[in-house]
Amino acid sequence: MKINVMTDVLEANDRIADANSQVFDTNRNLVLNLMSSPGAGKTALLESTARALKGELRLGVIVGDIETTRDADRLEKHGIPVLQLTTGSACHLDANMIASALSRMDLTSVDVLVIENVGNLVCPAEFKLGEDFKVMVLSVTEGDEKPLKYPMMFRESSLLLINKTDLLSYTDFSMDDAKRNARMIHPDLEIIDVSCVTGEGVSGWVEWLSGRYREKFGANTRA
Amino acid sequence: MKINVMTDVLEANDRIADANSQVFDTNRNLVLNLMSSPGAGKTALLESTARALKGELRLGVIVGDIETTRDADRLEKHGIPVLQLTTGSACHLDANMIASALSRMDLTSVDVLVIENVGNLVCPAEFKLGEDFKVMVLSVTEGDEKPLKYPMMFRESSLLLINKTDLLSYTDFSMDDAKRNARMIHPDLEIIDVSCVTGEGVSGWVEWLSGRYREKFGANTRA
Repeated sequence: MKINVMTDVLEANDRIADANSQVFDTNRNLVLNLMSSPGAGKTALLESTARALKGELRLGVIVGDIETTRDADRLEKHGIPVLQLTTGSACHLDANMIASALSRMDLTSVDVLVIENVGNLVCPAEFKLGEDFKVMVLSVTEGDEKPLKYPMMFRESSLLLINKTDLLSYTDFSMDDAKRNARMIHPDLEIIDVSCVTGEGVSGWVEWLSGRYREKFGANTRA
Repeated sequence: MKINVMTDVLEANDRIADANSQVFDTNRNLVLNLMSSPGAGKTALLESTARALKGELRLGVIVGDIETTRDADRLEKHGIPVLQLTTGSACHLDANMIASALSRMDLTSVDVLVIENVGNLVCPAEFKLGEDFKVMVLSVTEGDEKPLKYPMMFRESSLLLINKTDLLSYTDFSMDDAKRNARMIHPDLEIIDVSCVTGEGVSGWVEWLSGRYREKFGANTRA
């Protein structure tokens, strides 16, 4: 008898993710699973997002890291609810880690909940957390061929944010090639160019968030 | 009864890694396991290395990627033996993948064998492949706090190459903080700053390789 451990693990994970999703819907949370390589700029993006969403939608963040609470410390300065999960050695968040965290955050005071996954372009894409959308960040310093080399995350994500466009002229990254490669893997992928240094694209990203919130709950803001 | 699947997996892996190591010693190969985040510049570093080692030590490369043969295609242009392993969905190389590849490369014609692992700052650090040394690349665009957030790879590596120093002035990366953080995790870690664009540090890295080869085999070059 052959047991496919991985299939069992993923099925158990999906059941917990579905339960998380129901909790989020009840609390009127739009939930994103934010993924990228280490250092692609997820936390800086969330700092910009916290500033840009102020007065419109209330942001909350669950941060997953193997060690340290540095990202949570950075985000808390923006006056938003932040919960840090330290995974120890796990290279991704799973639905059970999120389930165990939910009671520790007041979800009724959050409109948009972003779950910042562990920096890893591979493993996080396999584990649903209960999110409405997967969103990924690729920074221009990583190279324009990444969609072809790490296809799963590009396939699973609804939106790709191409970050650090302020560094574009110092690299050999081609925006055209990156987008062509990404759409070869996932033809319907939405893509927004952003820079948290110049502010380019942050408004487009915030409009995307508001649009998804409106679609899910039929109102522009919670109030 | 509780079975620790991960411990069993790692023990089985280590046995195969030991066997790989014996094959490498017999063939007089210095073997490095080269690890980093996606896009940190492992392949560009190996292209510089191939040029710099020419006439001194014969380089061979085994490249692990989830998909595509792009890295192997780039390296083959330098006239060195290259073997591409496509892992499909595996987020790291393991000793068995290397074992199955060894018969497909003429190891007697290689002095320094570099195994370029899958781009991932987490999982590859757990799996020995039979290497003499683990070497990791951190690019300055990833952030100087990475040693604290992903400690295992920094702890397991003998040498840290801090890459893309040509981009240093366009980022808020602090070399001092990065080195302090890395040595907090691993006090004896050797560190070399490199840029494959300006060529900074490439000679230091090649000297490191020659030194390790000399230590293992008691000769500066194979001939």
